[in-house]
Amino acid sequence: MHAIDFIQDLAVIMLIAGFVTILCHRFKQPVVLGYIIAGVIIGPHTPPFALVHDEETIKTLAELGVIFLMFCLGLEFSLRKLFQVGATAFIAAFLEITLMIWAGFEIGRLFDWNTMDSLFLGAILAMSSTTIIIKVLGDLKMKNERFAQLIFGVLIIEDILGIGIIALFSGIAVSGTVEADQVFSTVGKLSLFMVVALVVGILLVPRLLAYVAKFESNEMLLVTVLGLCFGFCLLVVKLEYSMILGAFLIGAIMAESRQLIQIERLMEPVRDMFSAIFFVAIGLTIDPRVLVDYAAPILVITLVVVAGKLVSCGAGAFIAGNDGRTSMRVGMGLSQIGEFSFIIAALGMSLGVTSDFLYPVVVGVSAITTLLTPYLIRSADPLALYLGRSLPSPMVRVFSLYGEWLRSIKPRGDKAILAGMIRRILLQVGVNLTLVIGIFFGLAFFAGQIGQWLAQFVEQEALHKALIWGAALLLSLPFLIAAYRKLKALAMLLAEMGVKADSAGRHTARVRRVISELIPLLSLGGMMLLLAALSSSILPPGELLVVVALIAALVIAVFWRWFIRVHSRMQVALLETLEHNNGGH
Amino acid sequence: MHAIDFIQDLAVIMLIAGFVTILCHRFKQPVVLGYIIAGVIIGPHTPPFALVHDEETIKTLAELGVIFLMFCLGLEFSLRKLFQVGATAFIAAFLEITLMIWAGFEIGRLFDWNTMDSLFLGAILAMSSTTIIIKVLGDLKMKNERFAQLIFGVLIIEDILGIGIIALFSGIAVSGTVEADQVFSTVGKLSLFMVVALVVGILLVPRLLAYVAKFESNEMLLVTVLGLCFGFCLLVVKLEYSMILGAFLIGAIMAESRQLIQIERLMEPVRDMFSAIFFVAIGLTIDPRVLVDYAAPILVITLVVVAGKLVSCGAGAFIAGNDGRTSMRVGMGLSQIGEFSFIIAALGMSLGVTSDFLYPVVVGVSAITTLLTPYLIRSADPLALYLGRSLPSPMVRVFSLYGEWLRSIKPRGDKAILAGMIRRILLQVGVNLTLVIGIFFGLAFFAGQIGQWLAQFVEQEALHKALIWGAALLLSLPFLIAAYRKLKALAMLLAEMGVKADSAGRHTARVRRVISELIPLLSLGGMMLLLAALSSSILPPGELLVVVALIAALVIAVFWRWFIRVHSRMQVALLETLEHNNGGH
Repeated sequence: MHAIDFIQDLAVIMLIAGFVTILCHRFKQPVVLGYIIAGVIIGPHTPPFALVHDEETIKTLAELGVIFLMFCLGLEFSLRKLFQVGATAFIAAFLEITLMIWAGFEIGRLFDWNTMDSLFLGAILAMSSTTIIIKVLGDLKMKNERFAQLIFGVLIIEDILGIGIIALFSGIAVSGTVEADQVFSTVGKLSLFMVVALVVGILLVPRLLAYVAKFESNEMLLVTVLGLCFGFCLLVVKLEYSMILGAFLIGAIMAESRQLIQIERLMEPVRDMFSAIFFVAIGLTIDPRVLVDYAAPILVITLVVVAGKLVSCGAGAFIAGNDGRTSMRVGMGLSQIGEFSFIIAALGMSLGVTSDFLYPVVVGVSAITTLLTPYLIRSADPLALYLGRSLPSPMVRVFSLYGEWLRSIKPRGDKAILAGMIRRILLQVGVNLTLVIGIFFGLAFFAGQIGQWLAQFVEQEALHKALIWGAALLLSLPFLIAAYRKLKALAMLLAEMGVKADSAGRHTARVRRVISELIPLLSLGGMMLLLAALSSSILPPGELLVVVALIAALVIAVFWRWFIRVHSRMQVALLETLEHNNGGH
Repeated sequence: MHAIDFIQDLAVIMLIAGFVTILCHRFKQPVVLGYIIAGVIIGPHTPPFALVHDEETIKTLAELGVIFLMFCLGLEFSLRKLFQVGATAFIAAFLEITLMIWAGFEIGRLFDWNTMDSLFLGAILAMSSTTIIIKVLGDLKMKNERFAQLIFGVLIIEDILGIGIIALFSGIAVSGTVEADQVFSTVGKLSLFMVVALVVGILLVPRLLAYVAKFESNEMLLVTVLGLCFGFCLLVVKLEYSMILGAFLIGAIMAESRQLIQIERLMEPVRDMFSAIFFVAIGLTIDPRVLVDYAAPILVITLVVVAGKLVSCGAGAFIAGNDGRTSMRVGMGLSQIGEFSFIIAALGMSLGVTSDFLYPVVVGVSAITTLLTPYLIRSADPLALYLGRSLPSPMVRVFSLYGEWLRSIKPRGDKAILAGMIRRILLQVGVNLTLVIGIFFGLAFFAGQIGQWLAQFVEQEALHKALIWGAALLLSLPFLIAAYRKLKALAMLLAEMGVKADSAGRHTARVRRVISELIPLLSLGGMMLLLAALSSSILPPGELLVVVALIAALVIAVFWRWFIRVHSRMQVALLETLEHNNGGH
């Protein structure tokens, strides 16, 4: 009776997890630790004996746990929040991740671990734990202070960079090598895929969800959300990215829908159930003796995590212009590893590239750093005070001069508005061009299948290519035109506001005209180059190319206004979704 | 890549289920039908091809679906509601189930099906569909009318009887025979188990849940609820009952906790997810050609379901004293089969005693009767009017006389209060004696193990039995004493209020004394007999028996008051849980 074994496993997992979790709660430890300890107790390495029969099914359910965890992380992520995150978070997160991956790699090398173990250790150490930070800040009643907001910003950037790392490492794990150009192309393709998925997703998914929500049935909404989640994960897997990426992206897309709160409420119990299984499954694989055998690495890594994150995040926050006390608190707050690290460790295991000991080591480090977090946060203020007093006074003066200098170069008033407008236009141009790239890459990817299908109607292969290339060009025209128009607007803006009459003197008008005509011309040239580069894989032979280009030119001339209208409608739809989202973030 | 197949299956299931369900919703059909149709589309019997790879895992998850469906049915069930259900529901449900099992069995026989198929068909036809009725009554805006309340009462009794049928049929399916004494002993043991489980569960589980709820963590509450649910299912399976019974019972126990609403909110998405998989899995097994091949049985069974339920439930409602129009509406409202039927059909499949065609037939009948339900309810009033006019007038007179007679014999005023008190006392005595039986049966069941354990300390086997028997007696003493005291109170009540001075005349005082002393004496004798019967399996030899009985008498004499205190505390705890439950039912 297979089913009964399975029910027995679930009963054992949930009962022991529930019991240990209550104990953890009593002693103010996070639930995640409780689950893992429960897994160790149930597991085969501790007495009395292995209490789980059907480990295969439990592992499958644990995979669902990862998907739901990342999906809910995506739901809590929000593009608007990402745009609002300041320079501090960017700099701190970037410094942190670079330093920690390097440090992790070096530690692995130090203990004679193999390259993959060391690389994954780096990625594992790079990510802090959102759940633990929220829990600790809640307990300390510090959730609304300024440094807490900075920490949440860092966590958002970490999510994005972490997703990139997962995609990158999956690729490296499969190919087995790290080469600069490969990394570059992976990151490029990944960004491309993410932008296209987000734009298309945000145009379609919230509308679909709004339609389903009209039926006012929780059940239908849940089934639709689950269908989209699994379906998108599947699509992402077929494109050879990690399922984790898919779950996060579709979560981030749904975060822009008006049904966000309802979806969160429905998905929460599902996530809790399966993430409990995931964390217990981690515990199942842990042999406590490994913890003893690897006590030295665990202690060293713990020290590196605390010191490395404190220095990198603290320095990042300070470089971005925060005072010493706030920077210290940001660094201390981020000094632990948690659920994201487990997910990366699980990825390494499932790809079969990391060794068995990595998991227990990560769990050990996570347990200790978690226990330390509240004490570290509380010690930030005294430490900052002590450092302020004991640093040599020239250094203190340099630091305060740096702060003043930063404040002096910060754009203010008109300039700040101008900077904001320029950033906005450049973002829009970037999104449009990314979509163009996505269209060409997508059609190139499916060129084979489309060609086969076209062969039923048209015989010459050259004509197929011309047709596909023409279609790509046609599809991307609205976005190209929009990018061109945005750049033209940017040129005018720069000419008007960037060239001040008092500095350019009597040449003002001429300089302005040059700028406002040179930039569109340059950008047109750039776009042509982009198109040429993109077309390389599906470019038809010369004579056909000319024909297609002529047709394209004709189409542009005739449909110029229509293209503008189509694009502006799409843009309005997108912005509406992003801005009218009353998701309570 | 096992996990990706699994995700693909889930994606296909949820996407197609979501799509078909939206279509169903547009055409006002219940979601369940949509799931099953989605399953047929995905399944191996329809083009394009089998879209599900890992059917084994899907079936395991479908089992979870059944557990969660029955658990949530248990949550909606409530002992207090059961006590409030009137005679109408009892009579109608009992008539319905008896008639439908018989009718189903006869139809099976008619079509030359084997005994098991026919028996299961009977059980399948016996159960109406709560979800469909709630949906249709909601659509027709009739949820608060009197007949709707009667229907809900019938559904509650159906649940209880259905659970009994499931337990009974599992037993029959395993042994392969139906014998009267076996049925009697199964029903007896089942009732015993249910009463003991409910009393012990209601004493323990709501307290545990209240403790966990204090931590104000949805996650911990969910994990605890799931742990208790699976754990109890496991216990029930070890006692050789069906998991379905366990899920329903633990749901009914949790329905008495103060966290009911919170639990329902948390379990709803989990149930929806897995029940969708369950219903899709039903569709997966269906070959549409079987529907065509078995068109004749499907039509005949549909007719029998509609006619049989209309007659049995309608007659039941009428016999219990409702007017013709209400009775007709009750009958029409219950004229369909649904999710409970699928669960019984799935049980037959998983026990391997029913044939493959039974499932598609049940689905076909369910689909047609579901489509008919709203029209049937709407046709109840015209039909009742037509019958009232066209029946021969003597029959109409007999019917109205019957109604008058019923109203005349209904206890009123003092008598109604007296009847209520007597019913209450008898219920309490019944529960206490059931617990005593449970204690003896439980210790007899474990006598072997306890004996082995005792052998470490005591050598003689006779002494083991004496010790076990003594323990059973000691444990049941509080309940025996309570039952005795209740019966004494009943005797006094009957003597005072049952014997009126005007009818007994000058013998009043004497008759009263006889009654008030005779009943306790008789009940003491009855309890002794019960104990003797219960003890047969673990009774020690004669001389030891005398010793143990003497010790018991001594214990009674010394601890009488203490036993009364213990019992009244337990009773207070139980009643508190039942009455202070603000679950919003």
